[in-house]
Amino acid sequence: MKEQSTASRLGLKFKHRLTKKRSKKIGLPPGSMVHVGEKKVETARISVIDYDQQKLEVKALKSVEETLPFKKSPTVTWLNIDGLHEVNILETIGEYYSIHPLVLEDILNTDQRPKAEIFDEYIFIVFKMISYNNNHDELDIEQLSLILGPNFVITFQEREGDVFDSIRERIQGGKGRVRKSGPDYLLYALMDVVIDNYFLVLEKLGERIENLEEEVLGNPDQSTVQAIQQMKRELIFLRRSIWPLREVIGTLIRDENPLIKKSTAPFLRDLYDHTIQVVDTIETYREMVSGILDIYLSSLSNRMNEVMKILTIIATLFIPLTFIVGVYGMNFEFMPELKWHWGYPVVWGVMIIISFFMLLYFRRKKWI
Amino acid sequence: MKEQSTASRLGLKFKHRLTKKRSKKIGLPPGSMVHVGEKKVETARISVIDYDQQKLEVKALKSVEETLPFKKSPTVTWLNIDGLHEVNILETIGEYYSIHPLVLEDILNTDQRPKAEIFDEYIFIVFKMISYNNNHDELDIEQLSLILGPNFVITFQEREGDVFDSIRERIQGGKGRVRKSGPDYLLYALMDVVIDNYFLVLEKLGERIENLEEEVLGNPDQSTVQAIQQMKRELIFLRRSIWPLREVIGTLIRDENPLIKKSTAPFLRDLYDHTIQVVDTIETYREMVSGILDIYLSSLSNRMNEVMKILTIIATLFIPLTFIVGVYGMNFEFMPELKWHWGYPVVWGVMIIISFFMLLYFRRKKWI
Amino acid sequence: MKEQSTASRLGLKFKHRLTKKRSKKIGLPPGSMVHVGEKKVETARISVIDYDQQKLEVKALKSVEETLPFKKSPTVTWLNIDGLHEVNILETIGEYYSIHPLVLEDILNTDQRPKAEIFDEYIFIVFKMISYNNNHDELDIEQLSLILGPNFVITFQEREGDVFDSIRERIQGGKGRVRKSGPDYLLYALMDVVIDNYFLVLEKLGERIENLEEEVLGNPDQSTVQAIQQMKRELIFLRRSIWPLREVIGTLIRDENPLIKKSTAPFLRDLYDHTIQVVDTIETYREMVSGILDIYLSSLSNRMNEVMKILTIIATLFIPLTFIVGVYGMNFEFMPELKWHWGYPVVWGVMIIISFFMLLYFRRKKWI
Amino acid sequence: MKEQSTASRLGLKFKHRLTKKRSKKIGLPPGSMVHVGEKKVETARISVIDYDQQKLEVKALKSVEETLPFKKSPTVTWLNIDGLHEVNILETIGEYYSIHPLVLEDILNTDQRPKAEIFDEYIFIVFKMISYNNNHDELDIEQLSLILGPNFVITFQEREGDVFDSIRERIQGGKGRVRKSGPDYLLYALMDVVIDNYFLVLEKLGERIENLEEEVLGNPDQSTVQAIQQMKRELIFLRRSIWPLREVIGTLIRDENPLIKKSTAPFLRDLYDHTIQVVDTIETYREMVSGILDIYLSSLSNRMNEVMKILTIIATLFIPLTFIVGVYGMNFEFMPELKWHWGYPVVWGVMIIISFFMLLYFRRKKWI
Amino acid sequence: MKEQSTASRLGLKFKHRLTKKRSKKIGLPPGSMVHVGEKKVETARISVIDYDQQKLEVKALKSVEETLPFKKSPTVTWLNIDGLHEVNILETIGEYYSIHPLVLEDILNTDQRPKAEIFDEYIFIVFKMISYNNNHDELDIEQLSLILGPNFVITFQEREGDVFDSIRERIQGGKGRVRKSGPDYLLYALMDVVIDNYFLVLEKLGERIENLEEEVLGNPDQSTVQAIQQMKRELIFLRRSIWPLREVIGTLIRDENPLIKKSTAPFLRDLYDHTIQVVDTIETYREMVSGILDIYLSSLSNRMNEVMKILTIIATLFIPLTFIVGVYGMNFEFMPELKWHWGYPVVWGVMIIISFFMLLYFRRKKWI
Repeated sequence: MKEQSTASRLGLKFKHRLTKKRSKKIGLPPGSMVHVGEKKVETARISVIDYDQQKLEVKALKSVEETLPFKKSPTVTWLNIDGLHEVNILETIGEYYSIHPLVLEDILNTDQRPKAEIFDEYIFIVFKMISYNNNHDELDIEQLSLILGPNFVITFQEREGDVFDSIRERIQGGKGRVRKSGPDYLLYALMDVVIDNYFLVLEKLGERIENLEEEVLGNPDQSTVQAIQQMKRELIFLRRSIWPLREVIGTLIRDENPLIKKSTAPFLRDLYDHTIQVVDTIETYREMVSGILDIYLSSLSNRMNEVMKILTIIATLFIPLTFIVGVYGMNFEFMPELKWHWGYPVVWGVMIIISFFMLLYFRRKKWI
Repeated sequence: MKEQSTASRLGLKFKHRLTKKRSKKIGLPPGSMVHVGEKKVETARISVIDYDQQKLEVKALKSVEETLPFKKSPTVTWLNIDGLHEVNILETIGEYYSIHPLVLEDILNTDQRPKAEIFDEYIFIVFKMISYNNNHDELDIEQLSLILGPNFVITFQEREGDVFDSIRERIQGGKGRVRKSGPDYLLYALMDVVIDNYFLVLEKLGERIENLEEEVLGNPDQSTVQAIQQMKRELIFLRRSIWPLREVIGTLIRDENPLIKKSTAPFLRDLYDHTIQVVDTIETYREMVSGILDIYLSSLSNRMNEVMKILTIIATLFIPLTFIVGVYGMNFEFMPELKWHWGYPVVWGVMIIISFFMLLYFRRKKWI
Repeated sequence: MKEQSTASRLGLKFKHRLTKKRSKKIGLPPGSMVHVGEKKVETARISVIDYDQQKLEVKALKSVEETLPFKKSPTVTWLNIDGLHEVNILETIGEYYSIHPLVLEDILNTDQRPKAEIFDEYIFIVFKMISYNNNHDELDIEQLSLILGPNFVITFQEREGDVFDSIRERIQGGKGRVRKSGPDYLLYALMDVVIDNYFLVLEKLGERIENLEEEVLGNPDQSTVQAIQQMKRELIFLRRSIWPLREVIGTLIRDENPLIKKSTAPFLRDLYDHTIQVVDTIETYREMVSGILDIYLSSLSNRMNEVMKILTIIATLFIPLTFIVGVYGMNFEFMPELKWHWGYPVVWGVMIIISFFMLLYFRRKKWI
Repeated sequence: MKEQSTASRLGLKFKHRLTKKRSKKIGLPPGSMVHVGEKKVETARISVIDYDQQKLEVKALKSVEETLPFKKSPTVTWLNIDGLHEVNILETIGEYYSIHPLVLEDILNTDQRPKAEIFDEYIFIVFKMISYNNNHDELDIEQLSLILGPNFVITFQEREGDVFDSIRERIQGGKGRVRKSGPDYLLYALMDVVIDNYFLVLEKLGERIENLEEEVLGNPDQSTVQAIQQMKRELIFLRRSIWPLREVIGTLIRDENPLIKKSTAPFLRDLYDHTIQVVDTIETYREMVSGILDIYLSSLSNRMNEVMKILTIIATLFIPLTFIVGVYGMNFEFMPELKWHWGYPVVWGVMIIISFFMLLYFRRKKWI
Repeated sequence: MKEQSTASRLGLKFKHRLTKKRSKKIGLPPGSMVHVGEKKVETARISVIDYDQQKLEVKALKSVEETLPFKKSPTVTWLNIDGLHEVNILETIGEYYSIHPLVLEDILNTDQRPKAEIFDEYIFIVFKMISYNNNHDELDIEQLSLILGPNFVITFQEREGDVFDSIRERIQGGKGRVRKSGPDYLLYALMDVVIDNYFLVLEKLGERIENLEEEVLGNPDQSTVQAIQQMKRELIFLRRSIWPLREVIGTLIRDENPLIKKSTAPFLRDLYDHTIQVVDTIETYREMVSGILDIYLSSLSNRMNEVMKILTIIATLFIPLTFIVGVYGMNFEFMPELKWHWGYPVVWGVMIIISFFMLLYFRRKKWI
């Protein structure tokens, strides 16, 4: 029962995900700043981390204007915006960093296919941040947009809370390569942690697939099929969200852009391998789920066979006997057997012999 | 019931769509001007919008000749023709704008696969305008042909009424980039609004898929399978209409044609992304519909199992009892049990005990 | 019944088509002139149409020698041979027009995959002429071989009767481009009319698919499955015959051969589009036929469910009642109920109440 | 029954084919001369045919040494070795003709995927010779290795008996191009005759598929499914053996190797076409066999429906009647009907009317 | 029963393989040395084989420092490390041989997809060593990482025990090419022996597939489906582990790296062929397993048919007879037949005749 309701809840979520209402945008000129998606935070939050090997500054900003000094400094600036519905913030950033209106539009439309677009001054990357919400047993999907400039990375998230705390700690602790490297390495680090989280999601889904399999082998019912279909959809959705990422990272590697240093290439190749591994695992999961459906369907047939065998055994055993007793329930005046002294026991004997051979036959057929 | 008739109505429409009678064209020399398709308006209507950043002229024309002055002016001219059956109008336009006879033939044949053909003087694009007709619960398909010249865009539609009103308003209101840009941007804007409408169609289909799923989980019957197949076909048809559009836009982007300015390229790339997203969604829908069919088929098996269980329980319970009462309905003269005073209650007792163990057995099998 | 026999007739034809007896050729040296296929006409017929913009000559030839004068003249010569079994005719033509022995062998072997081969002096094209034979409700397949030389086109057909009458009329009437153009345009026109006929075949198949669907929704039986499989095979066969044609025309377009003038290229591109459309439609048909099979299979399950429900209702209703009346058919001496005055009506009352609740139960299960 | 045993015999053969015991080779250094496969002849046989346009010498050799004079002469030498288990013969040939050890290893390992390897001095080709053994109703598979040198062709076969007799005759009779051409043409001729035999095999399989279909439409049982699966495997195996041959011949055509004269290219292209046709036919067969399985499965459901209908008709007809006669078999003292004079005929009347309406109902349901 | 438990054991293993807990790595900076996988040995073991054509030194090392002298000598050094959990060993090696941190990270993460990475100084290859554990009837998977430098090969294994003993013997015995060749040939030899072992695994799986098939034809039950699904998964897993190896070897062949001598290329091509053959066989196995599932499902339907036929024969035979005897069990006062002297025998006669025709009917239907 609980499984079923979980399934339907996930189902609804999934449907909403599939068809975000773009209707309100139709007919507007391209580049129109309209936020497509749910409003997930009250007020947008802007924060900045500015660092080089020596210096480090972490700050929450009140207005976009405060970002300007960071833009000019040669240090690496990571500007993070949580919440997309305050369109004017994006417009100001777009102006300050001279970002193409279509890019801003793509950031606002949270229904993007992962993609990388390379401009002369900056690289724009958009993809999905996916995590498993243990409280509600469902996938949390958030769109992450990144802009990599010569000395800055800007990240746009739909809501507060992300998977980047480990990177913040690494920057603040001065550990690892990140403080020694440029914004391209920061970009890589951000993408890396998001893709690492995909593996976590896959682990969770793997567990749920195991549960499904156990349910199918145990006591499956019609809600099981729904849960299987639900899982199939989750996997389709995941593949659709992650598959294009391969191409995105491939573009970053192949394109010999000055924004991405040569020393970062091996890291990106590593990322590329991880993405392929995620997609491979999704494909394997899909085949496993198909297999579970096959097991379910054949178990249905098996149980039907079982039921039919019982019916057939009972009916085949008793219908002839009932006929025999019916014969001697007839009221003909001239039925010599009825008068015989041993008639009754003989009939019993005959019936027992018939039953015995019937049972023998069933045994030979391996029904009992 | 209503669902079924809807399904069959859509079904008929669909079949007509698949095989438009080309028969009347066979054997005619290529470039023959024959309208293949339904005659959807009484008289063809010609209208023109002529603009640059300063000027704007909107006019309904009576004859093709009136278009000539616009052709010569350097302003952007958008010539729109509603209705294709008046072949001589097309011939005159073909003459004035020196369009290849095969292009005119393609415009008339409303059974075209989306394609772009690049000529020295102009670019010819043909694809489908699809909208969801809420009144009749069906898809309205119309072929849209566009010709982009150095200072003009000509659009050919099968009938009046289109999705371009928002663009007309933008031109007349002087809003957005359209007045500041050339005919290539107008071409983009027209294609963009058509593709935006695909998303609306997908939203509607998404709703119908949800309904289908609810029906399958609720009270499905044979008409459900038809509706599922119908939906499958709609999706095949949509994919077939939209899939080649990817290639069309790709051609426009790759081909370094002077008719398309460099500043328009990002907009076309955006269009390209949208098309891929539409195709992705169609693929996802197809997999969802397959899943729904699986649910339906397994629910059939499940219900069969259910029915068989009831039959088996009843038969297995009563057939042996009927045999027992049959035994004591026999008319043998020497049946000592019949004379026993407690014979009758004992038989009842035996029957109750048998039933009890039977029910226990069914319970252990989880049938009841 | 008629459907079934139609199916089997087509079936046999199809099988023959699949495996033309090549056995007699095995071991012969390559280039051996052996006719593989049925002998479809009594005597081969040679006819010629020779024309340029001014002159026109139409002639039936008695011997191959008569073709020689046409070969030398600069006018366009269309030499048509009906019937392939007179091997010496081909040999003579091969000699006169210096055609490679392997090409002649390919012309004779009517089991060719569509292909284009480009030689220095000529282009060789072979593909299938398919038409729907309304009399016998089956597909007529004939292999068409074309040789395009600098001033001639030679066509080889398996039998008399073709789809080229409209072209002959156009040449004789002097209508259209054909008289003004070279042999490459004639080649195009011939291919065009053959491909146009594919659309006719598809229309016919589309109708038969609609009929199949109606049959499946109406009163399907086992012969329906055969008809579905038969249709599937026809479509496989069609696809196999037409799919390589794409490549053939693509080769003609890409290869910058002096035999094909630049002005003919747009026409070939048009042909290419048509071929893709044919293949697209075949794919759509294949998916439709798969869908019909799904409907059929689910209708089988549905009918089984229906049958089982009736059986279960009747059995569940009457088996318990039969048990009750069996109880009071027992012959025990001490059965107080039998003596009661209202015993009989009470039993009836009990049975009616039981039936009533049973029917209520079935109604709640939505079985009746 | 015979069909089944045939199936299982083929099945066993097939399995052996799939996994030839390579175990004995594991761990040996590459280039180790170990024969993997069955020993199919007692003693290896070496024979030679040496020819040019004037001369011809046919000879059975006793030892490899005798090949040396032929190697030096400029005439075309065709050296044929039947039987691979005498490893030292191969070693000597490898030495004389300076063949790479890995090539010799590949010749010995009769489990090769078809491939062509181009070395500076020679070309090595390995593929499968497949024929249909009418005596045992199974496929005979033999690995054929060819080495083409500047003036020689060496063929290695697993056993005596091959399909090359026609070529030997052509060489000896001096017919055809073979005596006038070089070793590359001989290579082509050898490959051609092997591929021609594929068509024979396909004809045989086509017949067996027709038989399978008739069996499925006639009186199928469980052994039919096995035969279908067996056929599927044969086709998988054939495809696997033949598919890479396309690539092999493609390599020979594309690679501009001096060993293959330009005049031989059209012949190789012809070969290429044949291979594609074989593969096409195999694919078509595979789809046909799938279709036959569908027919079988739906016929199972159909027969089940048939059986259930009969059961339901009988049960639905007689169970209510049995209830009625049971009612009047009750022994209540006060049952007024029993005393009525017309009671018995009235009951019969009622039962006949009920039966009549039941039968009417069944007829309306089209069950009888 | 044993089969089932085997299946579930394999199943569990498989699941663990699919989702190795990467969780502990998330958030760590890239290049972090964390061992992902099971700790399979107590202490890591380092051993070295150093050789050229004259010299040979085999040694077990106590610390990484001891490898330094070998690094400088021009002889070929094969350094083998068993056990990955002692991270500091890897770090030291990384330092001495200047290996990129990401490569070290990949070596530690035993969940890698097979890949080859080409650096300026060395080539890094990682893939799977698979063997069939006869004791536990399961697959042993171990990750093998290889680093090829100018004069060394380093191999990293998860645990002691490998398939390289034959190579060690060859080196020590001075047999074969290995002592005469460079480290690239050693690399080839190592990969070759691993891939040879894949064939062994395939042989074992082939046997298990044969067993599965026999079980399905013999006495299948629900556990059979699980075993089939289990086999499917094993094959998916194998394909996933081996398929990318094709690309790996292809990269080594294509990349004209000075580390790989030209004379080694034919050996690598041979390896490439073997890999394709392994993948081919896996695909064939997958199709065979699908076929077995089809046989199982159709056998379920067949058995159901069988059961239903028996039920129907019995019910159809006896239900009408029971009705007849019921008729003469009625207690009407006026039933003339009851008084007839021959009434009873006549009823028997009628019943025998009815049974006879019923049986005739069943025979005609081929049910009995």
